Amino acid sequence: MRVAFQGEIGAYSEQAAVSFFGPQIELLPQPDFRSIFEAVVQNRADAAIVPIENSLAGSVHQNYDLLLEFRLPITGEIYLRIRHHLMALPGVRKQDIRRVISHPQALEQCRAFLQQWPDIEIMPYYDTAGSAKRLRDENLRDAAAIASQQAAIEYHLQILASEIESDHQNYTRFLIVERQPKVPETDGKTSIVFATKDIPGALFKSLAVFALRDINLQKLESRPLIGKPFQYLFYLDFEGTLKDDACRNALNHLGEITSFLQILGSYPKGRWI
Amino acid sequence: MRVAFQGEIGAYSEQAAVSFFGPQIELLPQPDFRSIFEAVVQNRADAAIVPIENSLAGSVHQNYDLLLEFRLPITGEIYLRIRHHLMALPGVRKQDIRRVISHPQALEQCRAFLQQWPDIEIMPYYDTAGSAKRLRDENLRDAAAIASQQAAIEYHLQILASEIESDHQNYTRFLIVERQPKVPETDGKTSIVFATKDIPGALFKSLAVFALRDINLQKLESRPLIGKPFQYLFYLDFEGTLKDDACRNALNHLGEITSFLQILGSYPKGRWI
Repeated sequence: MRVAFQGEIGAYSEQAAVSFFGPQIELLPQPDFRSIFEAVVQNRADAAIVPIENSLAGSVHQNYDLLLEFRLPITGEIYLRIRHHLMALPGVRKQDIRRVISHPQALEQCRAFLQQWPDIEIMPYYDTAGSAKRLRDENLRDAAAIASQQAAIEYHLQILASEIESDHQNYTRFLIVERQPKVPETDGKTSIVFATKDIPGALFKSLAVFALRDINLQKLESRPLIGKPFQYLFYLDFEGTLKDDACRNALNHLGEITSFLQILGSYPKGRWI
Repeated sequence: MRVAFQGEIGAYSEQAAVSFFGPQIELLPQPDFRSIFEAVVQNRADAAIVPIENSLAGSVHQNYDLLLEFRLPITGEIYLRIRHHLMALPGVRKQDIRRVISHPQALEQCRAFLQQWPDIEIMPYYDTAGSAKRLRDENLRDAAAIASQQAAIEYHLQILASEIESDHQNYTRFLIVERQPKVPETDGKTSIVFATKDIPGALFKSLAVFALRDINLQKLESRPLIGKPFQYLFYLDFEGTLKDDACRNALNHLGEITSFLQILGSYPKGRWI
């Protein structure tokens, strides 16, 4: 199994991929999100792991757009607790550290911890695992990185402080996409994207097709429809799969009242790790 | 009238503020979005102009969060067509230019234009108007900026190419916030934020309070509820104001079935300029 992920070795995406597929997978780090979809389409990878939403920062909108563009079916999901650690080269002590390097979002999530340390310089970098790699590559003995435990192991760094994020309710939801759909028999969910017709109560009627069949909605997200200012695409997750009659009927009904409808995939509900 | 906006003089926000309030206003440039809200709360400004959504890039989520945090009422809105221009110091010719500086979003929106010019270096900068200012401040004669016409006038730059964005359906919606609400008598809209109770069909029931009263929805946006992973706040715009019985009744009804409800403001529907 070859799995494409965005980031450097040691990224949170890598941790999610290993948790989902097991440790025997071959990992393909990619520079950006578009490349992980391309790797699957071009058969260089069998699956891609796609961060779609963080419980603090919100949705990764670019990945919603790429799901629609590439039309690769979603085959799974996993929720990863994000634990940020402060790490440095072995032998470096806390008092040696003059600057802390990480992705801006990680720096923001650890702001309370960093404020206890007023003289420190905060250096935004493109990637959390990339900041750990940089300590090693450039042999930086006056700097620390904020990254995952996996990054510390990968780049032989020492963890100086663990779980330094302010809010521990910090989870990222990752989707798995493959070339072929894998619809589970039971206990699954389904993701779709649709655009409403320009009729009164269009969104209400769209949600009614689920409510009238007692299908629970899990998430609703709107994205702009390019070229049509202030019209929207809606990304919706609901409980149930394409093997359930009620869900298939709801989607047929939804097709009647929408101008566009695409099924992104049915997949088993994800574990929280 | 003192109006706070984010960015340098010449920013698109400034243009929106002048279009909305007229040219006689006093403009207060601020370094970030939080500061424009603070300027109004602390009575250093009478109003702030807040970009909330772009027709290509989507919502400015931070500003949704700040609307909720500061609880300043929305009193107006305006839609501004974003026109990007390539500009340089007077006398600089297109063949002298080795690099183009602008905000990453503007660079992205002009990518097709820039690709015709393969040798050019693309330099991301914190702000569009800031990149125009930088040409002037540093007397850069080998560089061009991408910014608004207002920025070209402000920093005495010459426009070398006009409206270079790939997609002309490029509009930004700005909100106006003040200390006191100003509910219009007719032809207005209302923005609210709510969280649903954890009951089946909660979002459907929330939208029903409007559909049952023939109130049109204009926009629905979800944001994560901090500390409660994968629960959401919903930001909703609908037609009608707090002076309409149907709207007041709908909001009373919504209050019965939500765990949280805040009215962000009723205001006249915005012009497109």
